[in-house]
Amino acid sequence: MKASMDCYVCLMGQAITAARQVQADEPTRFRIVNRVLKELVDFNPEKTPAVIADFAHRFTRQETGVADPFREAKQRATQEALALYPHLKQLVKDADDPFETAVRLAIAGNILDLALLKNIDLEENIDQALREPLAIDHTAGLRQAIEQAEWVLFLADNAGETVFDRLLIEQIAPKLVKYVVKGGPASNDVTLQDAVEAGLDQVAELVTTGYDSVGIVLDHSSPEFLNLFQTAPVIILKGMGNFESLNQTNERMFFLLQAKCDAIANYLKVAKKGNVVLRG
Amino acid sequence: MKASMDCYVCLMGQAITAARQVQADEPTRFRIVNRVLKELVDFNPEKTPAVIADFAHRFTRQETGVADPFREAKQRATQEALALYPHLKQLVKDADDPFETAVRLAIAGNILDLALLKNIDLEENIDQALREPLAIDHTAGLRQAIEQAEWVLFLADNAGETVFDRLLIEQIAPKLVKYVVKGGPASNDVTLQDAVEAGLDQVAELVTTGYDSVGIVLDHSSPEFLNLFQTAPVIILKGMGNFESLNQTNERMFFLLQAKCDAIANYLKVAKKGNVVLRG
Repeated sequence: MKASMDCYVCLMGQAITAARQVQADEPTRFRIVNRVLKELVDFNPEKTPAVIADFAHRFTRQETGVADPFREAKQRATQEALALYPHLKQLVKDADDPFETAVRLAIAGNILDLALLKNIDLEENIDQALREPLAIDHTAGLRQAIEQAEWVLFLADNAGETVFDRLLIEQIAPKLVKYVVKGGPASNDVTLQDAVEAGLDQVAELVTTGYDSVGIVLDHSSPEFLNLFQTAPVIILKGMGNFESLNQTNERMFFLLQAKCDAIANYLKVAKKGNVVLRG
Repeated sequence: MKASMDCYVCLMGQAITAARQVQADEPTRFRIVNRVLKELVDFNPEKTPAVIADFAHRFTRQETGVADPFREAKQRATQEALALYPHLKQLVKDADDPFETAVRLAIAGNILDLALLKNIDLEENIDQALREPLAIDHTAGLRQAIEQAEWVLFLADNAGETVFDRLLIEQIAPKLVKYVVKGGPASNDVTLQDAVEAGLDQVAELVTTGYDSVGIVLDHSSPEFLNLFQTAPVIILKGMGNFESLNQTNERMFFLLQAKCDAIANYLKVAKKGNVVLRG
């Protein structure tokens, strides 16, 4: 998916938000924004929003000197999600269709990053995800693909969202899930440390992309990850960053996300905030 | 007031919004954003946000070839405000302190631009402006200054807001008010045409800055306006653009605005959305 002009504006804003997370002073914020601006002037508009997000957050880490600006925010998100976990697990258990409920909750968890930054009501978002029809619904295809698969590759998105993913992984069990986290801090994306704090090592085999980018940059990914990506019988990809990076025609791939911005909603031709299970 | 990094992001977004008003296609939007980016890379951070707003909207007009991209939005704002006018006039008439009520309504009108673009409830905003204490309140000084003045210079802001300004101008009468509009289209700022459509020519002498900028650029203003600006016994300045451009220690100046963004709210040390009557 190509970056739109709105992505330019949004991702510049994200870099500033990241700088604020670590109380960077105005001259530092200025240096970050100036590097982002220079990069955007020559940006190839055929590239994806995730590429902008990648350098915007990379510059922020470099200029602030803080390796993981969202560390504290990610810990809060994980703690908040863990506090909800027993309730969510009960919802899945009591559901007529536990698999579908787990899919919907995994999508609801995709809002956790915005929920913390923008005071979005997480419980309301969960209710809505369970109640309203999916804007694109390839859940039946996902269910069938998993049934026929020996194992599942699961590309994670944000910290905290991990706990919601766990509910779906528990529905995929006893089949093995390889849960892919980022090779290093990138925005509020989940790292190995964040995933372990959320207890995901108890239900999945944790692997990393080998690279600290928002979204997936195949050129920079480790050979181990690339091998898994090429051979996995089913791939679940959470969130907008993964969709922006890897959106392609591929029957093995299922994108689970909430269309949190106009750029993604317009591209998918769904309403903003629409929940989506999309086969590649 | 210096531009903050948030201003960069916000004003890039405004340029895109302006381009959308006239259904500019993606390549046109791209050219606009690219010109804004290039200008921002070399931007002197000592300059004001209004300077950024000025070139952002100027590039939009140039690249879209539309002289007044907000023309239709401004007409809608004026019509909506005119429909409210009889009700607002009655509110002033029935008030214990008609002058103070008119001041507060003039500030409430400052939200009209955002109200139309972002579905903000205008009536709720009016109620709030009448009910809640001002975040900075130099109304007494303004009242006294007007009482002692022979005439008043009134720097307008957005179209539609004009109708709210009229209520205050009617309180200043029979003293003459010279109502200053922009020399040409700039964002949704009021022009001579917009002011006449709102009926302001019936209560004030209309003059222009002689320049089509968001906010005031003294270097580009007409000698006529500069003469009025230097000699006016009292100057009322509406909105954030005028504040950004002309904020200075000057007892003749009274800024009436709502702190609609974090940058202004932080600068003034008031809560966001706080209403302000500030003596310069």
